[in-house]
Amino acid sequence: MSDATAPIRFYFDFSSPYGYFAAEVIDTLAGEYGRRVDWCPMLLGAVFKKNGMQPLVDIPMKGDYSRHDMFRSARYLGLPFSGLPTPFPFASVAAARAVYWLKDRDESAARDLAKAIYRASFVDGLDMSQPEGVLDRAADLGLDRDAVAAGIQDQAVKDRLRDGVEEAIAAGAFGSPFFIVDGEPFWGADRLDQLRRWLQTGGF
Amino acid sequence: MSDATAPIRFYFDFSSPYGYFAAEVIDTLAGEYGRRVDWCPMLLGAVFKKNGMQPLVDIPMKGDYSRHDMFRSARYLGLPFSGLPTPFPFASVAAARAVYWLKDRDESAARDLAKAIYRASFVDGLDMSQPEGVLDRAADLGLDRDAVAAGIQDQAVKDRLRDGVEEAIAAGAFGSPFFIVDGEPFWGADRLDQLRRWLQTGGF
Repeated sequence: MSDATAPIRFYFDFSSPYGYFAAEVIDTLAGEYGRRVDWCPMLLGAVFKKNGMQPLVDIPMKGDYSRHDMFRSARYLGLPFSGLPTPFPFASVAAARAVYWLKDRDESAARDLAKAIYRASFVDGLDMSQPEGVLDRAADLGLDRDAVAAGIQDQAVKDRLRDGVEEAIAAGAFGSPFFIVDGEPFWGADRLDQLRRWLQTGGF
Repeated sequence: MSDATAPIRFYFDFSSPYGYFAAEVIDTLAGEYGRRVDWCPMLLGAVFKKNGMQPLVDIPMKGDYSRHDMFRSARYLGLPFSGLPTPFPFASVAAARAVYWLKDRDESAARDLAKAIYRASFVDGLDMSQPEGVLDRAADLGLDRDAVAAGIQDQAVKDRLRDGVEEAIAAGAFGSPFFIVDGEPFWGADRLDQLRRWLQTGGF
């Protein structure tokens, strides 16, 4: 049965252009059906390592196609996209920790920070692999830069992210974006249409 | 520039449920924009071997998700789907050769045979890995069973399929379904929406 009050779980890796596309639209989509979204950063590297998978852009043939598909998908969705930042894929640990740290204090601000990090990566082409880039985004949002920097280094936050990644894997999230709506999994920005119908109909 | 008279190239493997979904809808979609479809069976095994990839359903986590996603995608698209046949994935050489043989003689009949093989696999759960199953479908369509059987064994047809697979790989087709519209590649049944807009707009 559909629990129309339960939030939509949104797993994403900051080093994921399709995760960025989803991040731009999921709150509005969910809101149309009275749902909130629980933003949960994860680390795809852990999933890939566990399953012997490699990053999309590094896969023969599929990698080249995906680099083209990203631009077309952005145009199709009407979203700004400048391409992949350098380095790519990048370590998104600092970004994920910052969002987890902030989520316990101000969930709305955590979501804004996540969106700002994504846009910095995929619209402005900035390097978000290091704490500096993440802290710049936090400062732009009026957050206390030193407090966020300390949060990224906090052992409790490190543990929180590690647990979050394990939870994501246990929930079946092997890619980004990955959504869970009332127990139903949806992988990919190209499953947002099915996710929408799921919300409309309560399952189909 | 868009050449509105050029056929849409449709690469597919018979051992692909998403290829089946696409096969059910692509002719109608293309027809809405005055296009024909060039049905080109291929063998994903050759691509996987070349690139060190493995079949979708065998990939950890993603395999389990895909088995669920196939059923939901079928419901979303309003298509009959009974699940994966046994064995799966299956060798689709006989099916592909039969379609190539027939394509040179009666392209419309070749398309009908391709659809019948797909439905036998994914609606009726029949084994299409051996010539017998393929010949049964051909006979159902009123084709000469012995002639099709001989066609499957014809060296020229074997060569034609081998060349077709090489051509597909050279064109970048690493999965099924894979479409090329005026040089633009689209991979997956979930890119049919983008393909439609491409036809509508002449590229976006």
